[in-house]
Amino acid sequence: MTLEILETALYTDDLEAAEAFYTDVLGFEVILRAEGRHVFFRLENSVLLMFNPASTETQRIGDALSAPSHGARGPGHACFRVGSEGLETWRQILGKADIAIETEITWPNGAVSIYFRDPAGNSLEIGEAKMWGLN
Amino acid sequence: MTLEILETALYTDDLEAAEAFYTDVLGFEVILRAEGRHVFFRLENSVLLMFNPASTETQRIGDALSAPSHGARGPGHACFRVGSEGLETWRQILGKADIAIETEITWPNGAVSIYFRDPAGNSLEIGEAKMWGLN
Repeated sequence: MTLEILETALYTDDLEAAEAFYTDVLGFEVILRAEGRHVFFRLENSVLLMFNPASTETQRIGDALSAPSHGARGPGHACFRVGSEGLETWRQILGKADIAIETEITWPNGAVSIYFRDPAGNSLEIGEAKMWGLN
Repeated sequence: MTLEILETALYTDDLEAAEAFYTDVLGFEVILRAEGRHVFFRLENSVLLMFNPASTETQRIGDALSAPSHGARGPGHACFRVGSEGLETWRQILGKADIAIETEITWPNGAVSIYFRDPAGNSLEIGEAKMWGLN
């Protein structure tokens, strides 16, 4: 009985810039959008949530579909598992979009990660899952 | 070519309390620990990262394995996909640990989520993946 991640959340005060970045550069599909509050992206078998904390910090009372309040400020972090396309494909995609690779790390077991920033400054990583002994 | 979440990050200023909660209550396995900086938990096929932002906000210069700085403050959010054990099992697990269920939501397509807090106040959700049309 082991839980698995279904949704990962990041925060931004500019949802339009986030939507442009995650769709145009990373190729994610928007599955839900609430103006000024959030935009959600479908990944392979999970969902990336992008929230504006100015909206989610305040719980809407009386809304039956109102999730509890949350909202973080400052750069968060998420790591995406690279698929069979390999990291070189992502280096090229980021390069064509003029997204700088901030750091590249080769972990002790040989797995490689590249790090870059989204428009809000969140630290994103694309890495080989073998860094954790995963496939 | 679709990316998938490999690591989800949350933040806390009390890593010991986080470790006790995620291991004792949720049953996660610790895979890496750096005193005062982070504790990482292995999930089914991904990793939950718990960081102290006071440490990760400052990039360590000159360390070859130093990831770029990040660090958010305020309650974050993550959602875990419930397995075949079902939500009732998790209601019982949380109840036995005296963890209050803050909200329960039935989504328009019938999927159910329960929400609770970790010791740092992060908003955690355990939900049925069919809320997103996922398995």
